[in-house]
Amino acid sequence: MTMTQPDLSVFTTLESEVRSYCRGWPTVFDRAQGSYLYDEDGHRYLDFFAGAGSLNYGHNNPVLKRALLDYLERDGITHGLDMSTTAKRAFLETFRDVVLRPRGLDYKVMFPGPTGTNAVEAALKLARKVKGRESIVSFTNAFHGMSLGALAVTGNAFKRAGAGIPLVHGTPMPFDDYLDGRTPDFIWFERLLQDSGSGLNKPAAVIVETVQGEGGINVARAEWLRGLADLCARHDMLLIVDDIQMGCGRTGPFFSFEEAGIVPDIVTVSKSLSGYGLPFSLTLFKPELDIWEPGEHNGTFRGNNPAFVTASAALDAYWTDGQMEKQTLSRGEQTEAALRQITAEHAGAGYRGRGLVWGLTFDDPARATDICRRAFELGLLLETSGPQSEVVKLLPALTVSPEEMDEGLLVLARAVRETA
Amino acid sequence: MTMTQPDLSVFTTLESEVRSYCRGWPTVFDRAQGSYLYDEDGHRYLDFFAGAGSLNYGHNNPVLKRALLDYLERDGITHGLDMSTTAKRAFLETFRDVVLRPRGLDYKVMFPGPTGTNAVEAALKLARKVKGRESIVSFTNAFHGMSLGALAVTGNAFKRAGAGIPLVHGTPMPFDDYLDGRTPDFIWFERLLQDSGSGLNKPAAVIVETVQGEGGINVARAEWLRGLADLCARHDMLLIVDDIQMGCGRTGPFFSFEEAGIVPDIVTVSKSLSGYGLPFSLTLFKPELDIWEPGEHNGTFRGNNPAFVTASAALDAYWTDGQMEKQTLSRGEQTEAALRQITAEHAGAGYRGRGLVWGLTFDDPARATDICRRAFELGLLLETSGPQSEVVKLLPALTVSPEEMDEGLLVLARAVRETA
Amino acid sequence: MTMTQPDLSVFTTLESEVRSYCRGWPTVFDRAQGSYLYDEDGHRYLDFFAGAGSLNYGHNNPVLKRALLDYLERDGITHGLDMSTTAKRAFLETFRDVVLRPRGLDYKVMFPGPTGTNAVEAALKLARKVKGRESIVSFTNAFHGMSLGALAVTGNAFKRAGAGIPLVHGTPMPFDDYLDGRTPDFIWFERLLQDSGSGLNKPAAVIVETVQGEGGINVARAEWLRGLADLCARHDMLLIVDDIQMGCGRTGPFFSFEEAGIVPDIVTVSKSLSGYGLPFSLTLFKPELDIWEPGEHNGTFRGNNPAFVTASAALDAYWTDGQMEKQTLSRGEQTEAALRQITAEHAGAGYRGRGLVWGLTFDDPARATDICRRAFELGLLLETSGPQSEVVKLLPALTVSPEEMDEGLLVLARAVRETA
Amino acid sequence: MTMTQPDLSVFTTLESEVRSYCRGWPTVFDRAQGSYLYDEDGHRYLDFFAGAGSLNYGHNNPVLKRALLDYLERDGITHGLDMSTTAKRAFLETFRDVVLRPRGLDYKVMFPGPTGTNAVEAALKLARKVKGRESIVSFTNAFHGMSLGALAVTGNAFKRAGAGIPLVHGTPMPFDDYLDGRTPDFIWFERLLQDSGSGLNKPAAVIVETVQGEGGINVARAEWLRGLADLCARHDMLLIVDDIQMGCGRTGPFFSFEEAGIVPDIVTVSKSLSGYGLPFSLTLFKPELDIWEPGEHNGTFRGNNPAFVTASAALDAYWTDGQMEKQTLSRGEQTEAALRQITAEHAGAGYRGRGLVWGLTFDDPARATDICRRAFELGLLLETSGPQSEVVKLLPALTVSPEEMDEGLLVLARAVRETA
Repeated sequence: MTMTQPDLSVFTTLESEVRSYCRGWPTVFDRAQGSYLYDEDGHRYLDFFAGAGSLNYGHNNPVLKRALLDYLERDGITHGLDMSTTAKRAFLETFRDVVLRPRGLDYKVMFPGPTGTNAVEAALKLARKVKGRESIVSFTNAFHGMSLGALAVTGNAFKRAGAGIPLVHGTPMPFDDYLDGRTPDFIWFERLLQDSGSGLNKPAAVIVETVQGEGGINVARAEWLRGLADLCARHDMLLIVDDIQMGCGRTGPFFSFEEAGIVPDIVTVSKSLSGYGLPFSLTLFKPELDIWEPGEHNGTFRGNNPAFVTASAALDAYWTDGQMEKQTLSRGEQTEAALRQITAEHAGAGYRGRGLVWGLTFDDPARATDICRRAFELGLLLETSGPQSEVVKLLPALTVSPEEMDEGLLVLARAVRETA
Repeated sequence: MTMTQPDLSVFTTLESEVRSYCRGWPTVFDRAQGSYLYDEDGHRYLDFFAGAGSLNYGHNNPVLKRALLDYLERDGITHGLDMSTTAKRAFLETFRDVVLRPRGLDYKVMFPGPTGTNAVEAALKLARKVKGRESIVSFTNAFHGMSLGALAVTGNAFKRAGAGIPLVHGTPMPFDDYLDGRTPDFIWFERLLQDSGSGLNKPAAVIVETVQGEGGINVARAEWLRGLADLCARHDMLLIVDDIQMGCGRTGPFFSFEEAGIVPDIVTVSKSLSGYGLPFSLTLFKPELDIWEPGEHNGTFRGNNPAFVTASAALDAYWTDGQMEKQTLSRGEQTEAALRQITAEHAGAGYRGRGLVWGLTFDDPARATDICRRAFELGLLLETSGPQSEVVKLLPALTVSPEEMDEGLLVLARAVRETA
Repeated sequence: MTMTQPDLSVFTTLESEVRSYCRGWPTVFDRAQGSYLYDEDGHRYLDFFAGAGSLNYGHNNPVLKRALLDYLERDGITHGLDMSTTAKRAFLETFRDVVLRPRGLDYKVMFPGPTGTNAVEAALKLARKVKGRESIVSFTNAFHGMSLGALAVTGNAFKRAGAGIPLVHGTPMPFDDYLDGRTPDFIWFERLLQDSGSGLNKPAAVIVETVQGEGGINVARAEWLRGLADLCARHDMLLIVDDIQMGCGRTGPFFSFEEAGIVPDIVTVSKSLSGYGLPFSLTLFKPELDIWEPGEHNGTFRGNNPAFVTASAALDAYWTDGQMEKQTLSRGEQTEAALRQITAEHAGAGYRGRGLVWGLTFDDPARATDICRRAFELGLLLETSGPQSEVVKLLPALTVSPEEMDEGLLVLARAVRETA
Repeated sequence: MTMTQPDLSVFTTLESEVRSYCRGWPTVFDRAQGSYLYDEDGHRYLDFFAGAGSLNYGHNNPVLKRALLDYLERDGITHGLDMSTTAKRAFLETFRDVVLRPRGLDYKVMFPGPTGTNAVEAALKLARKVKGRESIVSFTNAFHGMSLGALAVTGNAFKRAGAGIPLVHGTPMPFDDYLDGRTPDFIWFERLLQDSGSGLNKPAAVIVETVQGEGGINVARAEWLRGLADLCARHDMLLIVDDIQMGCGRTGPFFSFEEAGIVPDIVTVSKSLSGYGLPFSLTLFKPELDIWEPGEHNGTFRGNNPAFVTASAALDAYWTDGQMEKQTLSRGEQTEAALRQITAEHAGAGYRGRGLVWGLTFDDPARATDICRRAFELGLLLETSGPQSEVVKLLPALTVSPEEMDEGLLVLARAVRETA
């Protein structure tokens, strides 16, 4: 397509150097609908990025939009801290009836602030308070957030260095298949726990993603997750599943850990929770862990009522039957078939994924960035992930149509070819 | 008024024990307009709390509402990470033209995530990175947030205990008048800095609120702030003003530090920044401090585009002339006059404040809670602050009318009398 | 005197750059007796340094020497970890009968390892274990040792920087008269403790020297020490007196805190404890604090039996009556008189001290180093102290004769004059 | 033998509960010679403990004794901080000529204080200072000392808990054969270092014992040590060998790492360094690491001159030819043969060791304590080691005669039989 030079001057002169996505996608986006974004010159982009997993129902989903406009128009409460509101009550009841009860999950619900890192901070605080221990085990290539508590259990050395202080109280363990299957699962972790001379500070909890999105689309097998849950139970550690990116249906079921049949002690949810890209997160935990004192953790925007409204609408529209999960798995199969073909055609290529989160890798780590750049030129938004940005990450909206999916996969295949 | 028993069951059974405001205000709010909230039974409450300072322009301000509805209706980008969008460009240009340039402030603008604690975490990271030191000086009764970095510089022992780990790398210093004027300003702080044997880890930065909102409406004098800025300059420490609660006009001018004539190195803004209660925050800093690498700090909701829209509308509507500041100071005088009278009539009562943030204290610390409870019964929302909840905090919308102000102050006076 | 160039080559080529005292005293010492050292060329030096307070009974004190030789000759146990030995039993009984009982002190005795820093580490561990808190309050210009636990409560920025990690869990408070009497004692410390919003992590203990030897001969008044003990009692903090340099009679009585009439919860003793310069230290504490598990703290050289022998001999010889204390105070008066005269003759000079520890200061901080250098040339060993090495420290053996004292003070006066 | 009840009252009433060895050996020792101790009732004990490795030349070795008595009798300097003395010069020259030069080791020599933990603290400080990083890697079941810096890299959970603060900045890695040979050496450690997303804070240094004495007589293979040295070189980490227990000939050569042919960057030596049980330690490092500032690390007893004298005498007497090493290896073979026979006769028994440090294990971990108790009754001093005290540790003096060795091994065999 023909590009006119976008006016980016205020971004480059006024905004901090810390900005990043805008560098890879040098245009100015204006509006969006479903799986497409449009820049101010009217160019259309197919979105296989979905707000880093925050837009599972697509951009400006009409069902959610209607509910949100109605609420705003009638002057519903916008900002409510943790006051009781009708919007909050409706959300709590819907979440209980649509999400928790059908899955037999008996969780208390905490509103820890509107972002994922708030939810992780609250989860870690609670785990430490419950167990009376400081140490948390996380996994290689984990990503849990940017505030100091969450950053200390995040793997990326570049992000960690931003802390400006030594990040302590966290110990990394190998994620599933980290050592290429050359060692038994948990051999090292369990030995450390069993041996009182090992030097490991006994952990309060283990925090894990079922699929590491930022870390490179690393997929934990169900049996590995079950082994981890079992290890936690046997060694008196709480199991925290950070489902911020993989929850809300990304891998198929509402929670990504359902497939493994485990019940974590604590769960964090955010990103697509509001369904409309509005900041919203939850920390869920077993009732017996709810030893918080009133106000012991708080936050100004923990009662984002417009987000309650869209979240309730999303649950009602997409999660009262099993259609969403089926559709996600079906689009996943479509994706996998295309990736299989791409990798068959390119030496050194590989892929991995689950549900509607997939990664495409190449022996040459620089390749992923080239592919994403070319895809952008071709009207497809794709991001990289992994410690060296070596993985092309596919994260379309779950509401993507088979035709849109095909369109994107064809562009991807072309970008792969053209950067070979 | 007659109260029917509200249905709070889902809150008490499903929501975590950490909930707090809903305990003092046992009703279910439904909608709000300007300075009033309405519960689901139609009862009206005059709001002297304003979302803990997040609703300076009142609830569902019609000017902002119009802009927001227009944006949502036309499918403007909702969620944008740090992609360039037309809404973001408009906000940056407006913020530059309405806020920064007229005040001669040459700041880079960082979108650190949508909450105040995100902004503080980013500020502390940057200060540590720039100076290569870990230590931060904060002040007695400071409140800066709940994630681990921000919590470590927060004074409240109850909140700090929630961390579950020892909070380190922060050292408290006495806030203005902390020792009742019995010691010269900064005598202790400066001596520690001058003496290489003092044992103080040399701080990277000092973080301060000009008026401590959560800490008890403690007002720093302009000369104290100037003394602090001078101390920072002489001892190579960055000065961070946390203007999350006191910025956006709460004390009169847009930034609360303007009155003192100081220019902080780093400023955090949030709460009323979006003007509509939508999560949004900024970290501002002098250009020479902008040593961030791209993506070194990030966050899913750092591009909350609907908030950009309402924030731009608020700046356009309220900050292009000096009216807002004048009006705030005028309402402040009205408030002070009423508080003067209340304290004159009650032994052991005192008051303090600036702009439209005021505190009413009593010798008996339990009194503040009683007054707020009674005020609620009388249809006025008021909160306490201070380490022992010993201060009645007045935080009306800046758009409050003189009549609403009078109404609230009369109810307050009555609640004081009836709890004597 | 005439100096031949000493052979220092192996020191300058093989020993680490960390060496320090040898730089100021460029000769090779060979033997010593009482208050005198002799270098290999036979030059004699009057010792007003006394092994930094480790040689209170003079070099190679004949009474202790006899006991030591007898013990070694008869093949007494040399190294005993914490095995029961006859030498250890004799020491414990003597320490109980000569030191503890006559002073009404009911302390348990711990052998924490042979050095002062071992004793401090054990004291801090125990305090933290007993109180279940991490934080320790120390004082400006404190010196407690070089291992990480002790270093974290030491004031000197240069020493602290050597740690290579941020030193945390310690908070400095102003030592007596730190702010030149311009503020009431403990106004800041007590306010922080009283205010639950102050941000001070509640301390497990306070560690203090009654006279800061390394910190500049800063003398705490008895009433200040009593105020501190009272503050600790009222706020549930343990009081640790580090009597490593000031104990064993340096200020007159065996323990330097006796004069103030206080009974610390924990006391550390070392330096002159063995009396012969042999490494030996103790941690003493009230019986109710003795919650150690067997072996929870240990150390290879905690049973230095030759040191037990000389320590017992020293206690028997010098502490069964009040003579030593009287003599120390008398020599102290002699010293003070001389310092009074010196300061009277030199503008900008001042002095301070107690017992037999004195400091001489000048407006020009560089002066102290010049004086010590000149004193060395004149055959007198003197060291500086203070954060800028701005204090000439007088620390003669307690067994110094009045004539030796006079000799040294005359040389000092001459060195002061000649460096004016 | 017949035991009269020893008088232990002052130990049980006055000494802290922290005492430990005296509990297992309930008698009062009085004198010692060579491989034998004698209690006050004249009972003789064969010593297979050797002061936890501090008495490699036996008790009160006559050659060292003569040198020590001569020095004390002639009033040699006893206490010298880091002043230059003739005794220190003699030690430095002897250490250079007898130890360093013949082995081609170009190390600077630091006197960090008289105990092993002082030496480790200095080593860690220096490594952090040189590399500008905080993190240190240690190994499972490592033991490095009791002060906070050394304790943080020590494995034993019981000792660690004594710290009273969370021990951070250290990460444990698996020691050689920790996972029973089921995983390749360094597979986990190297992967963490290679992967910038692993979450491992990049270490300044690795600290290792070649044989873990306290940790259970775990012997690192020479190829494992070489692999570790290679890993350190490739990943810019300093290699610290803590040779406090295994150095000074315990495994045969003077340094225990000689066999592996590696040259550590930093070495700590203590325990048998003085040869006479006198507190003395060294930190050795490559000249290019000597970036210490004068006095940046210090310590009162770092110049223990009597220990210099005995240390020089020991080096002169035992290390100028290869006899000591040969004899140690020969006694080691004698020991191994006996252990082979014992384990052959007892199901579930095993042994391991090198030079003259050996461990005997049983399937039942409680067995070791029983054996040591019985051995004591039979006149043999033996200690346990390992996280559960599950290993009988054999640590005789290196000067033990073949006959004494046989005597002890026979008693051991009997104690094993009688506790079966």
